Amino acid sequence: MTLLPRHLAEAFSDQLARLVAIPSVGAEGRGQAETAEAVGEQLRGLGLDVELHPTAGAPVVFAERRVPGAPTVLFYNHYDVQPADPLELWDSDPFTLTERDGNLYGRGASDDKGQLVSRTIALRWLEERHGELPFGVVFAVEGEEEIGSPNMTAYVREQRERLAADVGFWEFGGVDAGDRPTLVCGLKGILSVDLTLRTAAHDLHSAYGPVIQNAAYRMGAAVASLRDENGRVLIDGFYDRVRPVSDAERRHIEAAPFEDDQVKAHVGVERFLGGATGSEYQRRLQLEPTLNVNGIHAGYGGPGMKTVLPASAMAKLDFRLVPDQDPHEVFTLLRAHLDRHGFGDVRAELGEEPEWPARVDPGDPFLRHAAAALEEVYGSPTVIVVSSGGSGPLHPFVETLGVPMAMLGISYPGGRVHSPNEHVRWRDVHRGTYATVRTLERWAGIGVV
Amino acid sequence: MTLLPRHLAEAFSDQLARLVAIPSVGAEGRGQAETAEAVGEQLRGLGLDVELHPTAGAPVVFAERRVPGAPTVLFYNHYDVQPADPLELWDSDPFTLTERDGNLYGRGASDDKGQLVSRTIALRWLEERHGELPFGVVFAVEGEEEIGSPNMTAYVREQRERLAADVGFWEFGGVDAGDRPTLVCGLKGILSVDLTLRTAAHDLHSAYGPVIQNAAYRMGAAVASLRDENGRVLIDGFYDRVRPVSDAERRHIEAAPFEDDQVKAHVGVERFLGGATGSEYQRRLQLEPTLNVNGIHAGYGGPGMKTVLPASAMAKLDFRLVPDQDPHEVFTLLRAHLDRHGFGDVRAELGEEPEWPARVDPGDPFLRHAAAALEEVYGSPTVIVVSSGGSGPLHPFVETLGVPMAMLGISYPGGRVHSPNEHVRWRDVHRGTYATVRTLERWAGIGVV
Repeated sequence: MTLLPRHLAEAFSDQLARLVAIPSVGAEGRGQAETAEAVGEQLRGLGLDVELHPTAGAPVVFAERRVPGAPTVLFYNHYDVQPADPLELWDSDPFTLTERDGNLYGRGASDDKGQLVSRTIALRWLEERHGELPFGVVFAVEGEEEIGSPNMTAYVREQRERLAADVGFWEFGGVDAGDRPTLVCGLKGILSVDLTLRTAAHDLHSAYGPVIQNAAYRMGAAVASLRDENGRVLIDGFYDRVRPVSDAERRHIEAAPFEDDQVKAHVGVERFLGGATGSEYQRRLQLEPTLNVNGIHAGYGGPGMKTVLPASAMAKLDFRLVPDQDPHEVFTLLRAHLDRHGFGDVRAELGEEPEWPARVDPGDPFLRHAAAALEEVYGSPTVIVVSSGGSGPLHPFVETLGVPMAMLGISYPGGRVHSPNEHVRWRDVHRGTYATVRTLERWAGIGVV
Repeated sequence: MTLLPRHLAEAFSDQLARLVAIPSVGAEGRGQAETAEAVGEQLRGLGLDVELHPTAGAPVVFAERRVPGAPTVLFYNHYDVQPADPLELWDSDPFTLTERDGNLYGRGASDDKGQLVSRTIALRWLEERHGELPFGVVFAVEGEEEIGSPNMTAYVREQRERLAADVGFWEFGGVDAGDRPTLVCGLKGILSVDLTLRTAAHDLHSAYGPVIQNAAYRMGAAVASLRDENGRVLIDGFYDRVRPVSDAERRHIEAAPFEDDQVKAHVGVERFLGGATGSEYQRRLQLEPTLNVNGIHAGYGGPGMKTVLPASAMAKLDFRLVPDQDPHEVFTLLRAHLDRHGFGDVRAELGEEPEWPARVDPGDPFLRHAAAALEEVYGSPTVIVVSSGGSGPLHPFVETLGVPMAMLGISYPGGRVHSPNEHVRWRDVHRGTYATVRTLERWAGIGVV
């Protein structure tokens, strides 16, 4: 395993400690300006020109060093983190980077301050290996990823010329549960919707049951009408724009390791939706659009009985979308479905700003460099993940800017991202950072290929 | 209007004030022994022999004075009350009987301490009018009506010989929204059921949506499978034992005042279930068994979005049953329905002790005396309510003891029973108490008929 030189390992933990110490919790709007300044300082330390770009929310740290006539690599990262609570479940202070058992603990140690610092250390390492780099560098580090990147699509559209690049690295990546290097090539879109319903002016005694509509039943029926038992969405037109799976994608899906039994044990289920196993499990997870009910609430939920007839109900939905579904069109289809099925009185409102689905072709030359670099660094074949089941603002980079974005990095599935005791393993810092280095060397033709 | 003699009106408010002052909230298990003692004292004041009968819960105040060879009238009442909160919505202390604008305010002023004291004052009044009464008297005053009378069925079965009687008065009754006297002849049964469901060991990120079952969706689907949009219950066999409506019942239903528009305005609906209007509204309310969803809860319900895949869900149901449905059989049918519809993993548990439905034939001679007495006292035709939409332990008295129970009394729909500022109007105390007197005089043949 190729290790970071000692001074760069120290620089990694110093820089990360500095960023972790600022509690930049996006959901609480805390510490954003201060973290943006600290990130800017670290990027200036690389010799980049740094600007803080205001948005409707938290500022984006923009940094660049162009090389005339040479291609440019773009790095997308974020400096905000998830809330740290429940605090009592942390073994050390979440905002003090703490080394223990070969790991570095702290909120953001992995997601995404650790990944960000890994990229800057990779650039320093490259310069130490090759001197002045034969390509330009651009960073866009936002402060609202953990609340759904509500301003990123507009930001990228507005700054498309400043952000122009040839290849890029997405903010996350790492190994899978089998310690195999992964290269993720896509993210699903997300559409969140709040459903609300009122059937009467106020809750009633349930003796009125035979004559007054029941909001709890009715919201249950509305939600039940949207999908079937196997997860198939029953909204007319929902699947119309789903891009057919290519042969290459199918091959990657079929080559993906089967993690069924591990997931079943971890999650405590005996069967996946639709009885999916093996590559069908992977196909669903990576390529199926889906409808989740995040919550449904109406009426009484306490101990004992309460003979109440609820007059109002709510449900929260998220749709995970795949190319080329359009979140706004899906919202329109949902409204039409509710109207057609007699739920005209169920109000549907857009939740957070939707995100569009996006994928990069695993056959893209830059992704092939990345896959080869991962295999070389980790000593085992790269797992090509056609798409994550998760979502994020990949679409503006891939579609608006036309940049093939690689997703690889320093995380592992046990790293407790978003949870107490978030951490990275030193071994993943070494390997993941080196994989970034080797990907860029292969792409730029400056290292041994 | 025939008024209570002044000293009896004073006795009414003195006795009621004494009982209201004890906060006998059944749900909190407070003040039950003390209230039972106070009730016993008031019944002893009528010359009855009083015993406190223990049950698995609060004691029953049993009182009797038999007259050898003569028939007996039974009074069923309860001394427990609903909680008083929210306290800040009361205009006077809930546990201090307060006279204001011709009304008496306090928790239990109507339900059921007021009704109980009205019965005892009616008996004193009868003795003052006729001397020694030519019939026996039995009281059974329980302390758990507001929590569903979990011990009343067993109590009546055990004490069936001590409680033997020829006619009886149920604990409630009064005028309707049009100030017409009502005689209620039946109560629905009630079966409460808790549904719970677990689809995975813990909540997951909703990226797992395509492969892991969603508990919120699934509970919605389970609930939606149980009834249709018009309130028709879809459980096989649910209606099999429903007793056909008799011609007499149909006539009473058709004669019932149409309160549709008032209810629509009060409740804030434009349409009743199934489009019911007029006598169909009354038929549904009085005679239809129904399924209520008291609550459904799963997953996230707070502001904003949370991309969670809920692993557990719950719903609370109450079934309102009519003769001759059997709550335990309905519970078995529900289980079979869930199993047959693929919801074998939805756990169903009995909630509170079920109550059986019961009705008294409005043509029963005692009820005809009561109807005639009400018409005489109120000066308008008696509204015969074949059954209330509500529930209560009528079945043990009607079916186990075989006693025709009349439901008439001193309440009115504006009396805020179970709510802040519960009260009775003095005019209803006068009229309702006198109606009890005249019913017994007509039945016993001791007054002017």
